[in-house]
Amino acid sequence: MNAPLLNDEYFMRLGLTEARQAAEEGEIPIGAIIVCNDKVIARAHNRSEALLDTTAHAELMAITSAQNYLGSKFLTDCTLYVTIEPCVMCAGAIRWARPTRVVWGADEPKSGFSRFSKEIFHPKTLITSGVLADECAELMRSFFVSRR
Amino acid sequence: MNAPLLNDEYFMRLGLTEARQAAEEGEIPIGAIIVCNDKVIARAHNRSEALLDTTAHAELMAITSAQNYLGSKFLTDCTLYVTIEPCVMCAGAIRWARPTRVVWGADEPKSGFSRFSKEIFHPKTLITSGVLADECAELMRSFFVSRR
Repeated sequence: MNAPLLNDEYFMRLGLTEARQAAEEGEIPIGAIIVCNDKVIARAHNRSEALLDTTAHAELMAITSAQNYLGSKFLTDCTLYVTIEPCVMCAGAIRWARPTRVVWGADEPKSGFSRFSKEIFHPKTLITSGVLADECAELMRSFFVSRR
Repeated sequence: MNAPLLNDEYFMRLGLTEARQAAEEGEIPIGAIIVCNDKVIARAHNRSEALLDTTAHAELMAITSAQNYLGSKFLTDCTLYVTIEPCVMCAGAIRWARPTRVVWGADEPKSGFSRFSKEIFHPKTLITSGVLADECAELMRSFFVSRR
């Protein structure tokens, strides 16, 4: 068997696995993965309901975990993957942690950071959006439909 | 002896005590206090250096702690005091937690949230700034001078 192609879609699929796990736990289905030199060093999904903690978003927990793993406040040479456009809190956290690159799946016009300002990330952070966007968005849509 | 007057200055002085503790630990001196019906339910100071975690800002830790204390994701009837204008990450966290009121000491033109957007807090959140601003700012200034 060939080794998997370690591209954006591959890592976003890992994010989707985290997001599905969140949905199974009754959490808003968002997953985040942090990759350093093709190695996954952190993975997390929303846990705000379980912890009664609105800071327990996937990105924040993945950042804390990656910083702990690296022993560094800066996520140099890291890419953060997240299934949905980060909220303004998570975008601010990404600003401080300075991953080299951020990749998200679906845009989030209501709660996404870009509603407030597109300048929140550190200016050197590279951004890619729209990776597996339909799958990422569909997971959110079906979650909220099921909760009605 | 009379009971202390439980006003904004009183609670901001508790925030300054937290901020001074941060400085003693080599952390950027910012402190946060959350008050619910005149009772302090959370207090925290920056711990980013000790934890190597850029999410360990005073406000975020105070919010997590207060939500845990109240058993609620929403900080209804709570006031969050913080010595320095929140950064964009903490402002986003305040948006999700929805304290009734936010009070800060000194503005922070470089890293404060209002540089990006003044609309980040939930629209119903009441805001007061400038409480003991000189003392809050002086603590930051002398910290950075001492680190040069």
